Amino acid sequence: MSTSKPILVVGSAALDTLKTPFGDAEDALGGSSFYFSTAASLLAPVRLVAVVGTDFPREKIAFLDDRNVDMEGLETAEGSTFRWGGRYYRDPNKRDTLFTRLGVFEAFDPKIPEHFRQSPFVFLGNIHPALQLKVLDQIDNPELIVLDTMNFWIQGTPKELEAAISRTNVLIVNDEEAYELTNEHSLLDAAENLMKRGPKTVVVKKGQHGAVLFREDGDIFFAPAYPLRVVKDATGAGDTFAGGFIGYLASHDLNDPMVWRRAIIHGSVVASFVVEDFSMERTKDLIYDEIMERVKKFHDMTEF
Amino acid sequence: MSTSKPILVVGSAALDTLKTPFGDAEDALGGSSFYFSTAASLLAPVRLVAVVGTDFPREKIAFLDDRNVDMEGLETAEGSTFRWGGRYYRDPNKRDTLFTRLGVFEAFDPKIPEHFRQSPFVFLGNIHPALQLKVLDQIDNPELIVLDTMNFWIQGTPKELEAAISRTNVLIVNDEEAYELTNEHSLLDAAENLMKRGPKTVVVKKGQHGAVLFREDGDIFFAPAYPLRVVKDATGAGDTFAGGFIGYLASHDLNDPMVWRRAIIHGSVVASFVVEDFSMERTKDLIYDEIMERVKKFHDMTEF
Repeated sequence: MSTSKPILVVGSAALDTLKTPFGDAEDALGGSSFYFSTAASLLAPVRLVAVVGTDFPREKIAFLDDRNVDMEGLETAEGSTFRWGGRYYRDPNKRDTLFTRLGVFEAFDPKIPEHFRQSPFVFLGNIHPALQLKVLDQIDNPELIVLDTMNFWIQGTPKELEAAISRTNVLIVNDEEAYELTNEHSLLDAAENLMKRGPKTVVVKKGQHGAVLFREDGDIFFAPAYPLRVVKDATGAGDTFAGGFIGYLASHDLNDPMVWRRAIIHGSVVASFVVEDFSMERTKDLIYDEIMERVKKFHDMTEF
Repeated sequence: MSTSKPILVVGSAALDTLKTPFGDAEDALGGSSFYFSTAASLLAPVRLVAVVGTDFPREKIAFLDDRNVDMEGLETAEGSTFRWGGRYYRDPNKRDTLFTRLGVFEAFDPKIPEHFRQSPFVFLGNIHPALQLKVLDQIDNPELIVLDTMNFWIQGTPKELEAAISRTNVLIVNDEEAYELTNEHSLLDAAENLMKRGPKTVVVKKGQHGAVLFREDGDIFFAPAYPLRVVKDATGAGDTFAGGFIGYLASHDLNDPMVWRRAIIHGSVVASFVVEDFSMERTKDLIYDEIMERVKKFHDMTEF
């Protein structure tokens, strides 16, 4: 881990209220920046930029202090923390949003602290693409920029999103987003289309069907999802995947094609843990041996 | 191939009319028994039991004579051959049935020829489970019975289907069918549930998301689907998968767990070819070298 490079993450900070068949939770720690940091900090140092309101219960993120997460970029603004409410079902593909109260997140204007500007790895969480561009303007020569987005920005702010994608090295989307961004009908065509717009690497997440890595040199890698009996709370699975993925990249040689594949597996493993309990309950105490155990199972489940 | 054991297949024989964004086809060769035989006969001798009408154009199956398919069980009955019409879209997950004319298939009563009764491998194609049971009553000590079914029988004839499943060694279903048969919400729970009802092996097909092998000893194997730019005609993909899968099993040692995994890959490969053209156009001239080439690509796309 001594060779791990720092990762800058800019994203949301939220308190989530969840109703599920397995129980409820109120004002649980949420938001892409916290989900990402909890996962990535298992593998590399993390620098977090996000905004919370004056009502934010700081004790909820005390565990991140022990996990190599630099909180200097966590701004506290006058007002309420971003709150999201959702209902989950036994069918893990179903989810209803109950409410969205943006609070201080509505006026979020990410300011990158001086000593974060040289971060070699950058994760642009799922925020307004204009803000993602603003972040890119504040950083110096990063080695790798990874961008996440969602349907909301694909439909609402396509031009800004296109500009952000063009400055990105790795694009992470789910399969629906890949089709929507490209109007293609095969994942192969969609990924090739996206790689012509800037990113040399595209990662397509398919939820319970796993993830696919596409690289500009033609390399394709399929990873299944870890088979789980119960998905208790799927919130943050994508950001956790990104955390495991980039955390692994930040501590290994990017010139080795196998590193990219193993990064996908690490992302999938950490995401498989996070959905087994509410919020970050399962990942905040996760240890590397537990990750390695599931990485080994991924080997067992795919070799032939 | 000298050690390949014969496979008995009982299923439908049809003429399909297809409307697709890539062209149309009328009275193209179709039906589970022909799709299966075309695929399986690449790897093992096949014995076919099905029914066609007096209008059936025999020249359409001339290619099967050169492929080690014994047609003694192909009955010709007074009346019309089963005809099915379907429309496909650019989205390979969408399909509309335009018409279904059962013809002589409605009164299909499979009679297993004397010299087919000792077949070591048996594939019960997707027909009425009462007929599947009738087939099982006519065969002697098979090594392996594989059953395919569909939602129509799960809903319409659950008792007969349950009886047929209980006498089966391998059940092949798609993911929706697995959930519907078990009322479970995870594939793992669904497969374990199904393995308690008779079959020691369950294969779950997930279309473009691949296939999963579950075995009673706890072994789980995930195979992706071969990435294709265009799916021209998805008819018969499941029967072709079953043909490649069982064909491989029939020519290898069932005691080797890796044989089961490689059988899944062979099924996936042959299915990846069949959907690239209408009917059996692509698989009827397929050679083993082409299969091996894609098997190698499956290795490349999954190792890490």
